[in-house]
Amino acid sequence: MNANPTERPEHAQGGTYTVEGQEYVRDQRYITTRITADGSDGYPVEEGRYRLVAARACPWANRAIIVRRLLGLEDALSIGLAGPTHDERSWTFDLDPGGKDPVLGIERIQEAYFRRDPDYPRGITVPAIVDTHDGAVVTNDFAQMTLDLSTQWTAHQRPGAPRLLPDDPDQRAEMDAVMRRVFTEVNNGVYRCGFAGSQEAYDAAYVRLFDALDWLEERLADRRFLMGPAVTEADVRLFTTLVRFDAVYHGHFKCNRNKLTEMPVLWAYARDLFQLPGFGDTVDFAQIKEHYYVVHRDINPTGIMPAGPDLSGWTTPHGRESLGGDPWGGGTPPGPVRDGEQVDPDHTPLR
Amino acid sequence: MNANPTERPEHAQGGTYTVEGQEYVRDQRYITTRITADGSDGYPVEEGRYRLVAARACPWANRAIIVRRLLGLEDALSIGLAGPTHDERSWTFDLDPGGKDPVLGIERIQEAYFRRDPDYPRGITVPAIVDTHDGAVVTNDFAQMTLDLSTQWTAHQRPGAPRLLPDDPDQRAEMDAVMRRVFTEVNNGVYRCGFAGSQEAYDAAYVRLFDALDWLEERLADRRFLMGPAVTEADVRLFTTLVRFDAVYHGHFKCNRNKLTEMPVLWAYARDLFQLPGFGDTVDFAQIKEHYYVVHRDINPTGIMPAGPDLSGWTTPHGRESLGGDPWGGGTPPGPVRDGEQVDPDHTPLR
Repeated sequence: MNANPTERPEHAQGGTYTVEGQEYVRDQRYITTRITADGSDGYPVEEGRYRLVAARACPWANRAIIVRRLLGLEDALSIGLAGPTHDERSWTFDLDPGGKDPVLGIERIQEAYFRRDPDYPRGITVPAIVDTHDGAVVTNDFAQMTLDLSTQWTAHQRPGAPRLLPDDPDQRAEMDAVMRRVFTEVNNGVYRCGFAGSQEAYDAAYVRLFDALDWLEERLADRRFLMGPAVTEADVRLFTTLVRFDAVYHGHFKCNRNKLTEMPVLWAYARDLFQLPGFGDTVDFAQIKEHYYVVHRDINPTGIMPAGPDLSGWTTPHGRESLGGDPWGGGTPPGPVRDGEQVDPDHTPLR
Repeated sequence: MNANPTERPEHAQGGTYTVEGQEYVRDQRYITTRITADGSDGYPVEEGRYRLVAARACPWANRAIIVRRLLGLEDALSIGLAGPTHDERSWTFDLDPGGKDPVLGIERIQEAYFRRDPDYPRGITVPAIVDTHDGAVVTNDFAQMTLDLSTQWTAHQRPGAPRLLPDDPDQRAEMDAVMRRVFTEVNNGVYRCGFAGSQEAYDAAYVRLFDALDWLEERLADRRFLMGPAVTEADVRLFTTLVRFDAVYHGHFKCNRNKLTEMPVLWAYARDLFQLPGFGDTVDFAQIKEHYYVVHRDINPTGIMPAGPDLSGWTTPHGRESLGGDPWGGGTPPGPVRDGEQVDPDHTPLR
């Protein structure tokens, strides 16, 4: 998500993500303003007012893209998509005609951050939600953002939208614990492997990552989804890392005890999600590979993108229906992807 | 094998193996002097006179280590082993007490090359055979070297040594064609992927590599070994690349359409060889990983070594006995590895 993760000298050909001798520490300071149903933080939910700025390449932005689609918020919250690569200054709208977001009229996401704070000192990250009234970023707090799409935007959700957050407080507490472990060990764990600045930091991150994957392999053996019979926010958060695992993290980040395809339960679980509307149809493998391999010049100086892996397995039968459950928890699946929001068919194994 | 593959400026922290915009071209000029039974090239085969200088990390040296052991030439031809890493000047004997080869008394292999030619202008490579009379390299022509161990050193081979080169001229011609394709597309093909200086050069190398692996997968479906029922030189040459594939080439060289473990025939074939005496017992996975990940700083600037992959699969049953044949072609397997020549037990899944 981050175009400038820390205050470090920049590599001439791209960002610098590793610091020699140090472990990788994600800068977790965000703009935490919230868009709420009651407007109590100054930004009321309003149909058509805000624009979700994302990038298909980024796993943190991918969360928001999936949740927006599962909940049917396409009309309420428009989307702008930055291209897969960026320089040290910012993600850019290089995929749009003229290189500008057609709604915000800007070339660099940085501009929306500077409208919020001309001296904005931290990373220019996606996802961000921008207020179209003044073109300024309201929030880039990716973890709160998707929760608010579930709880604050209810008036604009589609009929049949799944409940991604459990009502039961015990269930919710358990889900929060699962999501916390998934965040520290898996979502961020792969980065801790890839951006380790010492062998020791890498080795420790690797052990933590695969310990957590082994735990998930066990947890999902008899549960169709992380919290049981239906898809929740926790599944969205795990999915965005799993779908990038073999394509990027296994090689580029040295998360290579095994491929995802070598963990039978997790691989079947990931395919189950991938094949549901709202998940795989948001995933652009070409943009994902281009992002990581081109942007992280300090760990891939040549910028060459691997041609592999073979992605055809993603559409093979997963057999997880036999665990029962209903992915939509009594609701309905999202409909077809909106025109103009489809992934390039050359960038996905979905047909 | 090469400590200095081309005349290029050296990277401060190690060698430079990629040239921007160019495909990788291996310097194939070697010292082609031969050690022969009749001494016609000035160097007669003589028990105890020569020393094979190798490194376990290097696939080209690994060939010679395997053939020497299969043929039982341990007494006739001693071995010196350089450590896994080297700087731009040379491989070194840093694993030996005092950092010197105990027979040659030198720290760097480079010294033996300079005794042959004080202005030696090309790469300092392993394997090399050094004459202990003057401490000078006789040959580093790795392809001819193993053939000569089979044909010129017959008087010193162990009883029951396998015939690694077919007598039948048609068979030999077929084997030469197989070995040629294995060399250009596979042995050197992985390097052409890893050291590609442009996306185009990489993409072309990747296609050629996996086309050849698909051809081998087919060829070996009903042949236990490349030339039929018994092990030959061709198997030795393919093995040294396959055994490094998942540990190094898949990630570090971006040979990632799939892992070796995902090609059922090749994976079973590689395990069959690995589990034969003379093959797996020469393989030091820790040295292999250290060599590639530490030396090639221009494609792995951090020098961090992956902890994976899980190697335990190498000792699992392969089922290839059902294809029939006798690996030793009527001969016998080599005996136990000599004292002092064993692979560190922490560096191999063999028990």
